[in-house]
Amino acid sequence: MKIAIAQLNFHIGNFEGNVQKMLEAVATAKEQGADIICFSELSTCGYPPRDFLEFDDFIEQAEAAVEALAKAANGIAIAVGSPSRNPVPEGKDLFNSAFFLVDGKIQQVQHKTLLPTYDVFDEYRYFEPGTEHKIVEYKGKRIALTVCEDIWNIGNENPLYKVCPMDEMMPQKPDFIINLSASPFSYKQAESRIHVVQANIKRYGIPMFYINHAGAQTELIFDGGSIVMSPDGKLFDELPYFEEAVRTYELDAVQKGGVHKPQPKDKIALIHDAIVLGVKDYFGKLGFKKAILGLSGGIDSAVTAALAARALGPENVRLILMPSQFSSGHSVQDAQDLAENFGCPYDIIPVQRVYEAYMSELSPLFGDLPFNVTEENLQARIRGMYLMALSNKFGNILLNTSNKSEMAVGYGTLYGDMCGGLSVIGDVYKTDVFELARYINKDKEMIPVNSITKPPSAELRPDQKDSDSLPDYDILDEILLQYIEKRQGPKEIIEMGFDEKLVRRILRLVNINEFKRHQTAPVIRVSPKAFGMGRRMPIVGRYLS
Amino acid sequence: MKIAIAQLNFHIGNFEGNVQKMLEAVATAKEQGADIICFSELSTCGYPPRDFLEFDDFIEQAEAAVEALAKAANGIAIAVGSPSRNPVPEGKDLFNSAFFLVDGKIQQVQHKTLLPTYDVFDEYRYFEPGTEHKIVEYKGKRIALTVCEDIWNIGNENPLYKVCPMDEMMPQKPDFIINLSASPFSYKQAESRIHVVQANIKRYGIPMFYINHAGAQTELIFDGGSIVMSPDGKLFDELPYFEEAVRTYELDAVQKGGVHKPQPKDKIALIHDAIVLGVKDYFGKLGFKKAILGLSGGIDSAVTAALAARALGPENVRLILMPSQFSSGHSVQDAQDLAENFGCPYDIIPVQRVYEAYMSELSPLFGDLPFNVTEENLQARIRGMYLMALSNKFGNILLNTSNKSEMAVGYGTLYGDMCGGLSVIGDVYKTDVFELARYINKDKEMIPVNSITKPPSAELRPDQKDSDSLPDYDILDEILLQYIEKRQGPKEIIEMGFDEKLVRRILRLVNINEFKRHQTAPVIRVSPKAFGMGRRMPIVGRYLS
Repeated sequence: MKIAIAQLNFHIGNFEGNVQKMLEAVATAKEQGADIICFSELSTCGYPPRDFLEFDDFIEQAEAAVEALAKAANGIAIAVGSPSRNPVPEGKDLFNSAFFLVDGKIQQVQHKTLLPTYDVFDEYRYFEPGTEHKIVEYKGKRIALTVCEDIWNIGNENPLYKVCPMDEMMPQKPDFIINLSASPFSYKQAESRIHVVQANIKRYGIPMFYINHAGAQTELIFDGGSIVMSPDGKLFDELPYFEEAVRTYELDAVQKGGVHKPQPKDKIALIHDAIVLGVKDYFGKLGFKKAILGLSGGIDSAVTAALAARALGPENVRLILMPSQFSSGHSVQDAQDLAENFGCPYDIIPVQRVYEAYMSELSPLFGDLPFNVTEENLQARIRGMYLMALSNKFGNILLNTSNKSEMAVGYGTLYGDMCGGLSVIGDVYKTDVFELARYINKDKEMIPVNSITKPPSAELRPDQKDSDSLPDYDILDEILLQYIEKRQGPKEIIEMGFDEKLVRRILRLVNINEFKRHQTAPVIRVSPKAFGMGRRMPIVGRYLS
Repeated sequence: MKIAIAQLNFHIGNFEGNVQKMLEAVATAKEQGADIICFSELSTCGYPPRDFLEFDDFIEQAEAAVEALAKAANGIAIAVGSPSRNPVPEGKDLFNSAFFLVDGKIQQVQHKTLLPTYDVFDEYRYFEPGTEHKIVEYKGKRIALTVCEDIWNIGNENPLYKVCPMDEMMPQKPDFIINLSASPFSYKQAESRIHVVQANIKRYGIPMFYINHAGAQTELIFDGGSIVMSPDGKLFDELPYFEEAVRTYELDAVQKGGVHKPQPKDKIALIHDAIVLGVKDYFGKLGFKKAILGLSGGIDSAVTAALAARALGPENVRLILMPSQFSSGHSVQDAQDLAENFGCPYDIIPVQRVYEAYMSELSPLFGDLPFNVTEENLQARIRGMYLMALSNKFGNILLNTSNKSEMAVGYGTLYGDMCGGLSVIGDVYKTDVFELARYINKDKEMIPVNSITKPPSAELRPDQKDSDSLPDYDILDEILLQYIEKRQGPKEIIEMGFDEKLVRRILRLVNINEFKRHQTAPVIRVSPKAFGMGRRMPIVGRYLS
């Protein structure tokens, strides 16, 4: 028996496009001699469909997509993920289901049992958990058909669920496992994925075909890397990261034993590739080609520009240099050098004249109050407005250049440098932004070294440095990582040896700046805990604040 | 036996303040001769604590709060909601629990079984459902102690859950039900609440004491309105809306039969009072006193100013008039009249000079491209920047004045009139904004009638009217209500008799403007489906768009 894996890039709600893409993969798999082709979780509607699932019309279109695919299931069986309706009034109205299509018909439907409802996941918001676990019989083989999280309760010290669907299926003696997934990327995910598949193989002793989605959906990147694992717990194959692929495997060969080494999983390289895909798909799926962003000569905008140029082509990334009276001469030069290195179009617009116009109108109201953060913000906001005006006039999308460290502590101006349709590096700590810059420069100095080596500064008042008001980034980022990614509280972080006053100040800054993050662009998620849909905090509260 | 209900206004994460408030209520209830005092759901930590629940330190503080309350349980029993830990590794780490405290100790803990995970609720994100249902015995009475949603599976045609906790408790023959709730306001909620309590009484035939939280938590307003219902299904009492109260009831009297009529539930009056509380608590709980907002002479900013003046006192609401070359003379006059009617301080700052400065810098880049939405947005953004500069300089919070209709169709400028820390009327359709204005004027013309009667206009280009690009608001709002609140699709809405082309255009506008709403301020929720945490839509998709 031959089994094909199709890791494809779906578009949420674009049923016609998704079905068309699957039909092409069916044709390819047939050419490859496959008996079964497997698609990822909720392939018909795209993942995550979110509250679109509450529309009857949306579910009808998903049902029609399954029907269309069933018609194509001739000479080949199709395993595909799609929502299905709960026939009884009690419980949620939908299931998250795997359909097994044979000979023009739905042969069987298996519902997802374990519904991830944490971090970026909201599945119990929509779906009733499955309670029946029946294997699929096809061409003399017995198949355990599962959906994503159903295999993830194994291999953890603190399992999230009380049941394991595979435990229920094993008495029915399946020959192998098919798992339809849509498992979002973080720089740790490829490793976790192999770990959890191995834990299943170790427990159940049969091969697994694990099919992941490959494509970006605003904040969430699905990195592909589908897995075929042999009963010896070794990789028979690992599909490429961040791209589509259709590959067919002979079950007998898989049964014999794993033959592949895992692909390299360097954190910075993975983050780089994930963000490039994230930007590319954001534009492609919205039907846009061109980006605009402000280039300061600092490292954040330099790295953002580099990633955007790789995603969209340098000719499609317009860079705007907006020096103020506090900008250093070398900043403008560094920015120009970068634009020229990449071949991106750029323009220079100074902020001074508009700043003076504002101040002449506002001064009577400000009275004799001293220069403070107001005037700093004003410069940042003038830049934001220039960029938005150009975005509006020329129909390109403004990319946000904030990094995770500054988003965390609120070191950014709302409606100023926090403007933008998509936050490119908002899930990358400053220390990792430096690493990304070095990675981008690994073959050639594309980002001027000066942008990497000079002390970070917002350049909004004379001789300003980030270190005036923040600790060194290696200390700041470690405290933030412990608080944000690891959910450690003040006591635990202080016990690690950090200064108590500093820890309390940083945690307080994170909490009181929730109001700013609430209004920022969606952030491309590359870590296990990004700002945005996966981190939901009260705005008004009094906790560590 | 005497039972006290304490509907209090808690502050998320402010354990010390919350415990102090509860200890004062315990003293009051003792004076009233109560045998038991009941607080609302998750009173110790405030509701909703959201991802603060993932911090061990946060749970430790909640446990300490329960201990402190247990010490006060002398001569009176205390029923209080607080998170508790799941002792087994399988499943989520926490329960959402009701503690019954007697004689300095925790006598019993009952876990919430039905975990709302829809709309604004994320409870299965944090909590494992309870599975045991054991009544509390106290002073010879048998009490069914339940938490919020546990009684809400009854009286619906399409119940969300497969179990009913009260069905499990009834064989233990409870004498009455206590329900600890934190049930957020919408203009339909007070009615639904009585309906569901009645459905329980009808099924179980015993009295219920239903304790709600009273206070605002950013977007969510908890409206109090706690209920004491007799076995005849009539109200024995309904506590006031939108304010704290501690009242004690003689069980024998409640047993005899209901004596009260429900309070009036006029939609517009409820929305008015809810928003006033929402603004008041947002400022109070953040430690701010003063607001600022832009006053255009139109109805949206007029109503927002009126609500803010009632919440914070007119002297604390600074109004800024920012006429452009397209503003009509009467708009400035209407705005001034309003400021004077309410007694709010106001200033006038024209946008023209800054606009010209922008255009002189941007013109070389714009070339000969015609005037379009770019220049309209520029004016709106200059206003946003003035307001933010004054907010920064004087330390007041900018209030957003967008209504729900314009937020829905994207008729607003990101980083312009969409600026602000809190959206005051973002869950009120334009047609209801008119109603609110009339309600505010019911005793005296506070909002100039001209602001109510003139055709709505953004005044960003010559002779602009909202009706140039949008249908009449009564049609628009009905289509939006069907799509947003009722989750009807295009087919259903067209079948109601609306023009097909118009329906498809409006639904498309709603979907393609998700990116704007993603970046807006939290919206005070007054309807069953508000923009924000309760409506989660993909930004990149192709559905009805």
